[in-house]
Amino acid sequence: MAEIIPLHTKEENFNECIREISELCKEDLHSINTLILDKLESSVPLIHEIGKYLILSGGKRLRPLLTTSCYHILNNKTSDNLNHIGLAAAVEFIHAATLLHDDVVDMSKDRRGKLTANEVWGNKTSVLVGDFLFSRSFQLMTKYGTMETLKILSDTSVIISEGEVLEISNDKNLEMNEDTYFQVINGKTASLFSAACQVGGLSAGAKSNQIQALKSFGTNFGMAFQLIDDAIDYSSNLKAMGKNVGDDFKEGKITLPIILAYGRSNSKEKEFWKRSFQKPSTDKGNFDSAKKLIIKYNCLEDTITRANHFAEVAIDSLSIFSDNPYKNLLIKLIQTSIKRIN
Amino acid sequence: MAEIIPLHTKEENFNECIREISELCKEDLHSINTLILDKLESSVPLIHEIGKYLILSGGKRLRPLLTTSCYHILNNKTSDNLNHIGLAAAVEFIHAATLLHDDVVDMSKDRRGKLTANEVWGNKTSVLVGDFLFSRSFQLMTKYGTMETLKILSDTSVIISEGEVLEISNDKNLEMNEDTYFQVINGKTASLFSAACQVGGLSAGAKSNQIQALKSFGTNFGMAFQLIDDAIDYSSNLKAMGKNVGDDFKEGKITLPIILAYGRSNSKEKEFWKRSFQKPSTDKGNFDSAKKLIIKYNCLEDTITRANHFAEVAIDSLSIFSDNPYKNLLIKLIQTSIKRIN
Repeated sequence: MAEIIPLHTKEENFNECIREISELCKEDLHSINTLILDKLESSVPLIHEIGKYLILSGGKRLRPLLTTSCYHILNNKTSDNLNHIGLAAAVEFIHAATLLHDDVVDMSKDRRGKLTANEVWGNKTSVLVGDFLFSRSFQLMTKYGTMETLKILSDTSVIISEGEVLEISNDKNLEMNEDTYFQVINGKTASLFSAACQVGGLSAGAKSNQIQALKSFGTNFGMAFQLIDDAIDYSSNLKAMGKNVGDDFKEGKITLPIILAYGRSNSKEKEFWKRSFQKPSTDKGNFDSAKKLIIKYNCLEDTITRANHFAEVAIDSLSIFSDNPYKNLLIKLIQTSIKRIN
Repeated sequence: MAEIIPLHTKEENFNECIREISELCKEDLHSINTLILDKLESSVPLIHEIGKYLILSGGKRLRPLLTTSCYHILNNKTSDNLNHIGLAAAVEFIHAATLLHDDVVDMSKDRRGKLTANEVWGNKTSVLVGDFLFSRSFQLMTKYGTMETLKILSDTSVIISEGEVLEISNDKNLEMNEDTYFQVINGKTASLFSAACQVGGLSAGAKSNQIQALKSFGTNFGMAFQLIDDAIDYSSNLKAMGKNVGDDFKEGKITLPIILAYGRSNSKEKEFWKRSFQKPSTDKGNFDSAKKLIIKYNCLEDTITRANHFAEVAIDSLSIFSDNPYKNLLIKLIQTSIKRIN
């Protein structure tokens, strides 16, 4: 008989793991938050206000945690050196800047249960404050980084923006192929996860093979994470990850469950997909029909299978590091992130 | 008897001076354009398309010309070193990124007589391609710069975005004071002019006092340049600098002619200003009344006087360099830029 676990527990396991890592990296996280707050200061009050609203609104600090964990995988002691702290803050600023611009592009109204900045202050302000946060991140990198970390983070910024343009270039394109989708989620999520891990390792003096391992870990974890995020959108009726189930569908976003379902649909069903994506609506009936087709063709299971593939590569990549609490928690983080879905 | 000069000649003198500098820096300009074209390449076709539309649409390359002129003020010979070329391209990418985002923020429909990118491809794409160009500029800096040039350019990016947020924070605020206005135009124009000059000098191995001189030159030239731009908007009926006369007024932008005119107006006239800026319109009658008040209170002359102040400081700052064709043309560039207004 199948085990019955309340759905919320799965999400909770992941959040619990984040809390464990946050506890382990408590001092670093405190320093990162201090630096973030300091760098949100501006002679222009509106910047400070929006920056605080956005960055202090209860995000998990997942990316800075990756930076500091990957630093400590190599250097399991405290030091006076602030480089990994500064780079973790830079990574969070890049992330915050992309969220601001994404919400403008997606015309989102809420994030993590709060109104988005563009809803409160308007699109114009969000675009410009996003530019500020992005510039600030480069200032931080210049202060705390080396030419090597700067190259990684500036290359990553290019990949992020290319991924975003690629995504809107394929808006409602049901025939987008899986490789293009992988390029999109690499830009959206995996590239910054990867950069966050690499700059943490570099700050601890990682050797070339260790950087390769952290790069692979971050990239593959990011791919797995985003695949699960995209699956969650069609899975349950619970609010998960501060994202409303069905949002992607409403916005006409093409994600893997849709790519698989469309490809496997018969011609009558394909007509349904075309109608639904030509004019995305909030019609619950359409969403329910979409979910039925996704179930009929096992598209969620197969999306999760893809995620598992990346998760396994990520976990294996850490094998060159000796066992330590940071490594063990990073592995648990991947495992629980995959199990967020029912 | 006053000399009668056709109005267009004044604009032409400036353009002619740009052509002279472009001729003097011909080889560098060619290299800069090659590098720009190369760096607009992307695996995402839309980025390439918009980038080309924007960057190859006949801008004057004023900022890259500042970089290369300031390089050659110090190093009047050709060299195999591409650093100043790469940094000039980086500066142009920052400029292009801000233009894209500005046009979204201002909802502009045309620039230099062509439809803006946001008109052709939509706001979303413009926001994201702006992010790409901005990221690309950081990639270029990382490749061709040093920690010192990176610091200058990342600090400049922060100042630019702060200036832009400050400007929209003061949208339609007739009581904005002159110092705030100076901070806005420093962000909008002077800071990037200054950075363009400094990174040119640094690429040629400038000493600290020479960098200070180039910094002062760029900043003060930028302030003068923007003041004249803002004055032109209320001066003639000619299309000047690819900007439509009256645009600032239509958009409700507070610039120095308005700040001075509002401050000097009597209470009845102040009511007119409040009405006009509460609901900016394309009503020609309103614009004509605004121009009459600006003339009545000598606000254009006083704006030009301010511009002359900055222009003189800029010219004087070059005195530490011995005479050479680059220096002489930079001085002529400032002089003709000030005289663009009738």
